Amino acid sequence: MKAEILSIGSELVSGQNLDTNAPWLARALGELGIAAAYHTTIGDDMDDHVAAFRLAADRADLVLTTGGLGPTQDDLVREALAKAAGVGLREDPESLAAIAAFFARRNRPMADRNRSQALLPEGAEALPNPIGTAPGVWMTIGRAAFAAMPGVPNEMKLMFAEQVVPRLRLRHWVERVIVHRKIALFGKGESDIEADALDLTARGHVPEVGITASDSTISFRIRGEGLTPEAAWAQTEETAEQIRSRFGPLVLGEGATDVADALVEQLKRTGATIATAESCTGGIIAHLITAIAGVSPYYLGGVISYSNQAKTDMLGVPPELIREHGAVSAEVAAAMARGTFERSGADLAISTTGIAGPGGGTPEKPVGLVYLGLATADGVETRRIEIGPEQPRDIVQRRSAKQALNWARTTLLAWPDRGASR
Amino acid sequence: MKAEILSIGSELVSGQNLDTNAPWLARALGELGIAAAYHTTIGDDMDDHVAAFRLAADRADLVLTTGGLGPTQDDLVREALAKAAGVGLREDPESLAAIAAFFARRNRPMADRNRSQALLPEGAEALPNPIGTAPGVWMTIGRAAFAAMPGVPNEMKLMFAEQVVPRLRLRHWVERVIVHRKIALFGKGESDIEADALDLTARGHVPEVGITASDSTISFRIRGEGLTPEAAWAQTEETAEQIRSRFGPLVLGEGATDVADALVEQLKRTGATIATAESCTGGIIAHLITAIAGVSPYYLGGVISYSNQAKTDMLGVPPELIREHGAVSAEVAAAMARGTFERSGADLAISTTGIAGPGGGTPEKPVGLVYLGLATADGVETRRIEIGPEQPRDIVQRRSAKQALNWARTTLLAWPDRGASR
Repeated sequence: MKAEILSIGSELVSGQNLDTNAPWLARALGELGIAAAYHTTIGDDMDDHVAAFRLAADRADLVLTTGGLGPTQDDLVREALAKAAGVGLREDPESLAAIAAFFARRNRPMADRNRSQALLPEGAEALPNPIGTAPGVWMTIGRAAFAAMPGVPNEMKLMFAEQVVPRLRLRHWVERVIVHRKIALFGKGESDIEADALDLTARGHVPEVGITASDSTISFRIRGEGLTPEAAWAQTEETAEQIRSRFGPLVLGEGATDVADALVEQLKRTGATIATAESCTGGIIAHLITAIAGVSPYYLGGVISYSNQAKTDMLGVPPELIREHGAVSAEVAAAMARGTFERSGADLAISTTGIAGPGGGTPEKPVGLVYLGLATADGVETRRIEIGPEQPRDIVQRRSAKQALNWARTTLLAWPDRGASR
Repeated sequence: MKAEILSIGSELVSGQNLDTNAPWLARALGELGIAAAYHTTIGDDMDDHVAAFRLAADRADLVLTTGGLGPTQDDLVREALAKAAGVGLREDPESLAAIAAFFARRNRPMADRNRSQALLPEGAEALPNPIGTAPGVWMTIGRAAFAAMPGVPNEMKLMFAEQVVPRLRLRHWVERVIVHRKIALFGKGESDIEADALDLTARGHVPEVGITASDSTISFRIRGEGLTPEAAWAQTEETAEQIRSRFGPLVLGEGATDVADALVEQLKRTGATIATAESCTGGIIAHLITAIAGVSPYYLGGVISYSNQAKTDMLGVPPELIREHGAVSAEVAAAMARGTFERSGADLAISTTGIAGPGGGTPEKPVGLVYLGLATADGVETRRIEIGPEQPRDIVQRRSAKQALNWARTTLLAWPDRGASR
């Protein structure tokens, strides 16, 4: 059973508009146990429509199209479906009545062109659209069932749920349930993590396990399948447990999609408070933390000590320390973390100082060199990281911010639950 | 001349991750005068790879693929290209040396699996990847030229610009030049701005003018076409001048894509320095400023005074002011801006305090209510804005941050050039 999703519109294929319908439909199908094998996007060209429909009719069992059902000259789907099936078009009286009623409800005259939206290929069924003018089309071409839906997301989603899914159940195409479980990790490269999980990601492993990297965060995706949601979930359990026990502190946890969420989970668990001092990361750490709702009790505040003067005035970093070691140094990172810890009263303070680039690098201190500092009641530690001199400014900033957040997270892992004595 | 874009990865076809590469490539091709006729997305399945490559080789002249070049078992593109072309794979010594050097620069051992990334189909050329391990592949299959690029957006974009585009020029596929000139505006709604520009955005206007809104920034996009970049540019000149004169201080300027860039341009022009104090925006203002390279001389630093204690300790906001008026008040916004102005020594200080949501709103102070403060040697002013109680946290944070940046920008517009007396 293979499904194909076809997105139609010149504004999509040219990249002017982002297509959110196709990923939505792919996820919706996935949850019903139907795998989308292909997405195809085409523009408003009749030959491309007919060729794409024929190809889909040949390689897929189910074809979902979105877009191209409007009243204008570049809406070609109804006609192209008829051509691909080798049949004619007829006017559907019920659809015409529904379109007329739609305009009447809004006290607007129905334009002549909207009449074309009531046309259907011979043998096709109309899919009612209670919230728009364009009815959808349900028909068979070759081996495949086609559902042509509008491109307006709300109309498409309602039509999919109310009209398409019941037809899939009637055909017994929807019986099994598929769940995707995602476990995010941070702190090692994708190839290192994969090397430790080759048994899990091997082809033919049940359940199927995929691995992806985004912005240095690595995610395992486990695909479970079963007759019920519970059974599908149960199929993933052992593999999820293997990943958790094998990668230990690298695991951000399952709810957490990234390092900041996972850190905030630890702050909530331990009841600890945090403060930040940022130089090269320029506020990203604070931004990533405060993007999370409900963090106020745990995040006391932060300083962006971008200039040397600010490091001294706002954090008490001695000017002679900066003169002797330079602003980008372990000594200054430590003094920034210590100053923030002492001035904020937080349980934990993190700091960054580095060279974000593209200018400012030297052979000894290249672009991408960042020192992190972490202060707690136990003292201050520093780490030196290199993001690589060829990385652009935003990557140096984001990755070093995430490293700092992750250091705070792994530090908190060893702390007791809120209220317990340490 | 038809181009096809192929996005590869089970995380894409299943809808788990949003594909931003395909729209980016479609737009980049469009600017070169090449129309993308198809996008196709497939998962990590060898048969689907080979079938999609053969189909693309048959219906397109140029095929751009992204993804599937990593070192793991589900990265199938190199092998699938060889199968689709009916050739074998060979190890490319130069690519292997580049991959080894990449790891050496990071002082990390190269995993055995990374060796597979140096494999190339017979007759193919490697496309160097200076910022990642995966080299790309350039080869001909059937009638089509294939460029296989990594899925990591930064690596893909660099490879496209430095390796693919020059090869398109060599083939004379890129001859006419299309330029898109973008003029960004901030400070009024899209419909208000559009109403004042209906003559320019009308169908058939030469050059074509589009209008888009993103995150409250409105952009006019003027499309010029010609045989040379100069001719294409000249076609846009009169329209650009009309927009500049019609919208005056709303215009962020042409280099500036958003408010922060435009503010930094004004800082450079006037030589003024700025400092920030953020509560509800939690570091976004600092982040937006420090994302811009070369801002160090102008941005002294900032404070994220997230807790009331931090407002008092770090900025000298009197506790009784917070008790009397609440942390979200014009009085506290003013005290934050004044404290930052005095403590930082900057020429201009901006502050934010508000309710980002989703919790914490009251009938008098709903979610989305934000007070801004601005302090200069002339004194302190405040503004009250409402982003609307139904907006999500990130929109409230971003829009209020941009309003604060824009206030600083428009203030600086009246200041003289650096060195001139005020």
